[in-house]
Amino acid sequence: MSELRYDPVRKTWVIIATERGMRPTHIQRPETPLHAVSRAVCPFCPGNEGRTPPEILAIRNPGTQPNSPGWKVRVIPNKFPALTIESPQKRYGKGIYDVVSGFGAHEVIVETPNDQEQMADFTIAHMRDVFSVFRDRLADLMKDHRFRYIMIFKNYGSEAGATLCHSHSQIIAIPVTPSLVTVELNSVRDYYMRKERCMMCDIIHQELEDGERIVINEERFVVFAPFASSFPFELRIAPKTHNHDFSVLDEDHLQHFAAVVKETLLRLRKVLNDPPYNFILHTAPPVTRRPGKPEYWTSISSDYHWHLELIPRMTMIAGFEWGTGFQINPTSPEDAARFLREAEI
Amino acid sequence: MSELRYDPVRKTWVIIATERGMRPTHIQRPETPLHAVSRAVCPFCPGNEGRTPPEILAIRNPGTQPNSPGWKVRVIPNKFPALTIESPQKRYGKGIYDVVSGFGAHEVIVETPNDQEQMADFTIAHMRDVFSVFRDRLADLMKDHRFRYIMIFKNYGSEAGATLCHSHSQIIAIPVTPSLVTVELNSVRDYYMRKERCMMCDIIHQELEDGERIVINEERFVVFAPFASSFPFELRIAPKTHNHDFSVLDEDHLQHFAAVVKETLLRLRKVLNDPPYNFILHTAPPVTRRPGKPEYWTSISSDYHWHLELIPRMTMIAGFEWGTGFQINPTSPEDAARFLREAEI
Repeated sequence: MSELRYDPVRKTWVIIATERGMRPTHIQRPETPLHAVSRAVCPFCPGNEGRTPPEILAIRNPGTQPNSPGWKVRVIPNKFPALTIESPQKRYGKGIYDVVSGFGAHEVIVETPNDQEQMADFTIAHMRDVFSVFRDRLADLMKDHRFRYIMIFKNYGSEAGATLCHSHSQIIAIPVTPSLVTVELNSVRDYYMRKERCMMCDIIHQELEDGERIVINEERFVVFAPFASSFPFELRIAPKTHNHDFSVLDEDHLQHFAAVVKETLLRLRKVLNDPPYNFILHTAPPVTRRPGKPEYWTSISSDYHWHLELIPRMTMIAGFEWGTGFQINPTSPEDAARFLREAEI
Repeated sequence: MSELRYDPVRKTWVIIATERGMRPTHIQRPETPLHAVSRAVCPFCPGNEGRTPPEILAIRNPGTQPNSPGWKVRVIPNKFPALTIESPQKRYGKGIYDVVSGFGAHEVIVETPNDQEQMADFTIAHMRDVFSVFRDRLADLMKDHRFRYIMIFKNYGSEAGATLCHSHSQIIAIPVTPSLVTVELNSVRDYYMRKERCMMCDIIHQELEDGERIVINEERFVVFAPFASSFPFELRIAPKTHNHDFSVLDEDHLQHFAAVVKETLLRLRKVLNDPPYNFILHTAPPVTRRPGKPEYWTSISSDYHWHLELIPRMTMIAGFEWGTGFQINPTSPEDAARFLREAEI
């Protein structure tokens, strides 16, 4: 049974996922190559729908049946979940420590039936379908008041943590707020309380004025390399107009977001030779949508600004960087933005 | 020129080390193998002292000259430093952002003249020499009031970020406090203010009572797997008696620390088949030793408890884990401690 445990010194939660049953000899070393499976057994390939738990949502061709071929995007429960919806939702203390039982949801978004294409290859229309599924799963999971946060993320390439080649993203809904999300929420709230302005809106304003860290500046979205980038070619993709909640994205923004993400991935592929990468959707926690929520949370709609964080995995995260939160980045964000801007795609 | 930049959303500093001059084509992918160089050119091998900047400190056989063979442990400036002592110490704002110029020190501790032995192979007497050098360099750097924190750490194995095989550790002295150190300092101070007890002392007390996460319990030190371990086989090595400052470690504790670290590394090597690992020394910041320091910092001698954090690198740090601070650990610390405790070494 999984459980969430709190580190009182570092103020951070971890999931101890013992269901996954790792004995020392079973633990995969980081160098383990990407698990390339044949189409006959790949659980994400059409025709193999029976190899996964029943689908939660799919965008399908008219007339096709659930859990059979004919889908364009398909959402399924993770077969090896870090957290399960069946777990009791228990919170208790253990001396100085805090524990929450491993209650949650862990879903996989299979982004395409075609195992030969990666996200950068998708048409804009297909990319839009994928992001509409992100939005709709997020909106649905946000209705469950037991979840404190819903993370949507993608690991592309084995160095980024992917275990299957077939293009997919993941959703984890958890009964606690992740530490870095708490830090972000608190920073932007403090800023708003002092200035009555959104910090990300101010950052976007300054970045557009400076220009040197901008990669793409289109009508609805801006793509930029953060001033304090932790990693080479780290990027943020954010809407220019203030909005805290990805789950209420309108069709117009969805269309622009799809086009901008595709262009960003193509530029990264060109400049960095198809790098492994992760992206993480940062959006306001579900509690903002609940009736009767305290003032503390109500403010989030004014001060949080959703964005996509994109990290190519070009350098090691060495342990001292993990242990201290202190990153050494060998590429300036100004250089990174210039290389990406000037790439011919 | 390097600079330190502050992320106002994540409340964290990064070093943009552009001196290292990484163009997209120069960035090493994580899979780059460990740089095994021949003894003729290894800058850490005896006889090649001229290939490094002049030594800062060495433990030497009597009668041998600086920067020549005859040393047991040797400290040199890093030839490719992330920060340099020659940089001006400037702090300035840039619109919404904060910048500190790349002032600092970056040293390498070559732990042995013998490139065939790794730290786990050292005799206890040799290990003690290495840790006495840690202590003495720390004490010396703490005298420079421009440094806010001094990090001592080791990357062992290429998956842990090492670029040379020859056994070595590193010191980075920086003009800001790393974000995770700030979080730790604040957590333990809040705890002390409420309870007038050190949080780590309470944790050690509870761990010794529980017993199930203890790996080694000797006279002066305890080695345990933290309750909320982020990674499989993550360990903490801490003195049983309260002490905040590694730079004042007495000879008795030094001797015990050397023996306990050696035993820990041998147990890890046995159970995990010579894993890559990082360790990071967590000790109170230098400001605690300054005259006229404010009450805020004075308290640290009561509430901070130095310890060594040891992380075998058995799993990926996937991007979502970086992006959210949310780790999924497939091995419970209770299992990890039991495997390590029961190993025959």
